[in-house]
Amino acid sequence: MKNLTPMSEDFNQWYTDIIQEAELADYSPVKGTMVIRPYGYAIWENIQEYLDNRFKETGHKNAYFPLFIPKSFIEKEAEHVEGFSPELATVTHAGGKELEEPLIVRPTSETIINHMFSKWISSHRDLPLLINQWANVVRWEMRTRLFLRTSEFLWQEGHTAHATKEEANEEAIQMLNIYEEFVQNIAAVSVTKGLKSELEKFAGAEKTYSIEAMMLDKKALQAGTSHELGQNFSKAFEIEYSDENNKLQNPFQTSWGVSTRLIGMIIMAHGDDKGLKLPPNLAPIQVVIVPIIPSKNDKNKVMENVENIKTMLSNYRLSIDDREEVTPGYKFNEWELKGVPIRIEIGPRDIENNKVILSRRDIDNSKEEVSIDKLKSKIDQLLIDIQKNMFDISKNHMEENTMHVDSKEDLIEALNNKEGFVTCYWSENKDDELEIKELTSATIRCYPINNEDTKQSINDKKDGKFAIFSKAY
Amino acid sequence: MKNLTPMSEDFNQWYTDIIQEAELADYSPVKGTMVIRPYGYAIWENIQEYLDNRFKETGHKNAYFPLFIPKSFIEKEAEHVEGFSPELATVTHAGGKELEEPLIVRPTSETIINHMFSKWISSHRDLPLLINQWANVVRWEMRTRLFLRTSEFLWQEGHTAHATKEEANEEAIQMLNIYEEFVQNIAAVSVTKGLKSELEKFAGAEKTYSIEAMMLDKKALQAGTSHELGQNFSKAFEIEYSDENNKLQNPFQTSWGVSTRLIGMIIMAHGDDKGLKLPPNLAPIQVVIVPIIPSKNDKNKVMENVENIKTMLSNYRLSIDDREEVTPGYKFNEWELKGVPIRIEIGPRDIENNKVILSRRDIDNSKEEVSIDKLKSKIDQLLIDIQKNMFDISKNHMEENTMHVDSKEDLIEALNNKEGFVTCYWSENKDDELEIKELTSATIRCYPINNEDTKQSINDKKDGKFAIFSKAY
Repeated sequence: MKNLTPMSEDFNQWYTDIIQEAELADYSPVKGTMVIRPYGYAIWENIQEYLDNRFKETGHKNAYFPLFIPKSFIEKEAEHVEGFSPELATVTHAGGKELEEPLIVRPTSETIINHMFSKWISSHRDLPLLINQWANVVRWEMRTRLFLRTSEFLWQEGHTAHATKEEANEEAIQMLNIYEEFVQNIAAVSVTKGLKSELEKFAGAEKTYSIEAMMLDKKALQAGTSHELGQNFSKAFEIEYSDENNKLQNPFQTSWGVSTRLIGMIIMAHGDDKGLKLPPNLAPIQVVIVPIIPSKNDKNKVMENVENIKTMLSNYRLSIDDREEVTPGYKFNEWELKGVPIRIEIGPRDIENNKVILSRRDIDNSKEEVSIDKLKSKIDQLLIDIQKNMFDISKNHMEENTMHVDSKEDLIEALNNKEGFVTCYWSENKDDELEIKELTSATIRCYPINNEDTKQSINDKKDGKFAIFSKAY
Repeated sequence: MKNLTPMSEDFNQWYTDIIQEAELADYSPVKGTMVIRPYGYAIWENIQEYLDNRFKETGHKNAYFPLFIPKSFIEKEAEHVEGFSPELATVTHAGGKELEEPLIVRPTSETIINHMFSKWISSHRDLPLLINQWANVVRWEMRTRLFLRTSEFLWQEGHTAHATKEEANEEAIQMLNIYEEFVQNIAAVSVTKGLKSELEKFAGAEKTYSIEAMMLDKKALQAGTSHELGQNFSKAFEIEYSDENNKLQNPFQTSWGVSTRLIGMIIMAHGDDKGLKLPPNLAPIQVVIVPIIPSKNDKNKVMENVENIKTMLSNYRLSIDDREEVTPGYKFNEWELKGVPIRIEIGPRDIENNKVILSRRDIDNSKEEVSIDKLKSKIDQLLIDIQKNMFDISKNHMEENTMHVDSKEDLIEALNNKEGFVTCYWSENKDDELEIKELTSATIRCYPINNEDTKQSINDKKDGKFAIFSKAY
């Protein structure tokens, strides 16, 4: 049927093929941008639903800020403009005229949001201000890859303002934890959370935290980031509030975001030669029923049972594949390609025996007969088991492909000749990090925040923090 | 407290004030664009939730198409480019370079979506193709008004392809009906649905249907549109499918949309001198509780009761205003300004008598004592009553301010000297319509589809269709 390069043969080509063949996304006529097709967009909707609930539970409110940002705004925070300048898209003409000041299509909304914050914040009673936006952003990229790096992508960006540095830090960590919770419990991907190095942090942040996942080709993928911005933007945009003693203060701020890149992560963390494997908590279709109809006489009876099963499983996202123009085998392949967690087959002989055949996507060639009476409780449990199994596999994969080194030579050797994460004790130093990057093309993914002990570093022999190096997407 | 121009004094200023004072939206630094603040965005989220469910129930799937459209695409359908050219915003530079072909920021997505449809559709089995997109669009406007006409706005745009003209017509009508259902049952605004005149139809459509509402100043507002595109775009973008006889055909198409303009409609259809009136089915806060705490000793007791009521009403969107820095009177004004349908007051004396005081926003100065035991069932019924009452008021307002005329002179006279809708029998004719527009600044809002009889027209004395003229937003 479909034309899928095996993962084992060429991981990158497999990734590109699977996106097209499973109809997750398509290339658009504008170079570097993409069309997210319904099956891919349904995954994004499930991501949004989970995160949006968690953001609201933690007191955040959604708002919408303009797509276009005056060029002068981008230039107000020195590191910010330096970081984003090469990627900006600029509107110069509108309504048939040349604009007096060119407009930037937002690459991120810190500048325009903080301009508005300066109008909305005046008293300590206005704090904390906890805002989130779901939006499209544009960062012009030379080398693009569907979902992972496109010139336009969809994301959410949280922006908050707080009275104290401590509160801002707590917020940044809280949102990092929500990202970790989502990626581990819903996307079933194991992550390490930590602090970015100076070289890798967000342009304009004081600290950037991230969650880092390991893909099946053993490269790292940054799945979400949360920034402590300190007072950098509140000073640049003159956000001031009068504190309880009537003194003017600049608030401390955070911003945090995840994007449609998460869909790329899910593809690369779980798939196999047959296609996608979607975790039940996120799959647009959790259960697919394929009716087996050997002759026309069987049709009514089989479809009647299919409808009963559909009613029985009405609390799940379920699809019935009753196409007549393709064979059951074709359907099996297609739903495996699309990563549906559970497939149910039911034909006349099964009905006679009051049973169906279940296949779980996470275990190769699994087939099990289940009595129809027990189907509901079986599916309830199986979806939980699949979710857990997929996470366990991801966790084991990360652990098995992480090694520790005690010298710079071993670090370089490991990054060049082995795959996976390499940990070591490292003392923060841009030049040394750039040297490693040049020699291996790997970077520090993060200093994990669950490992606080220090030892002699492998670069300058001073105090070193536990660090993870890896090649990354 | 707040600075609200009375509606009776200056409707337009009242509208602008209410948006600012109720914190629905704010002006952005980029001329003609707006910031949708959390309270306004929460209304949009409720609009989205209802419509998105209905779209999915009727078989549509969401997808996402790029923001940027090649200039050449916009030019492929002749009427389309003519209609949109004056409003386009153009990206000429990206990634530090001038682009070879300028990119248009989407004013609507017909062109890019139909380009993709031409890749996805090849067989009759691919039809119908039923796609919706939630997105931002840009139409550069000279004279802008918050929510009603801004250079960037949020909307949904449905795009479908069908094998037959009949099916496309059914789809266009189905979506028009869903818009009517939403606006009447959820937004509590009475609408007339009908067909647009040639002069007012969408650039590129064969037929445009719309729903038209009457605002409190008796002007019309177009609240949603649904277009039959015929084969205009499928021919321009070479969308072809092989039918059951293996012959190549161009599908028939529709597109349909509503936008954040609906929020402007809700404000202008329901408010009064005190502020907004939000219909319960759409209000971000359906019930607000204001605890009355005359002395510190009362606080614990009152708040305990407030928490009990909160639990009792947990199926509603409820807010507790426990601010200590402002008086109850200030709070009453603020929640009236913000249009919350029901306010509950509760103080120590009420608790002694096992009751609370209820005020409903839709009826002026309403106050009612309700026993706490009966509060839940009372609120259940009251929210239904308020929703219905608001719709009835809207319906009466439209009926009372609609008059019928039997001559062109009377039409011109009525449009110039009276407010509201003017109906007549009219025979479709661009020149005559332009003449009326020039003399009165009013246009044909629609030919209602529930009134199919024809009579001699007031313009050219030929067969006339029943038409509604009005000034409009």
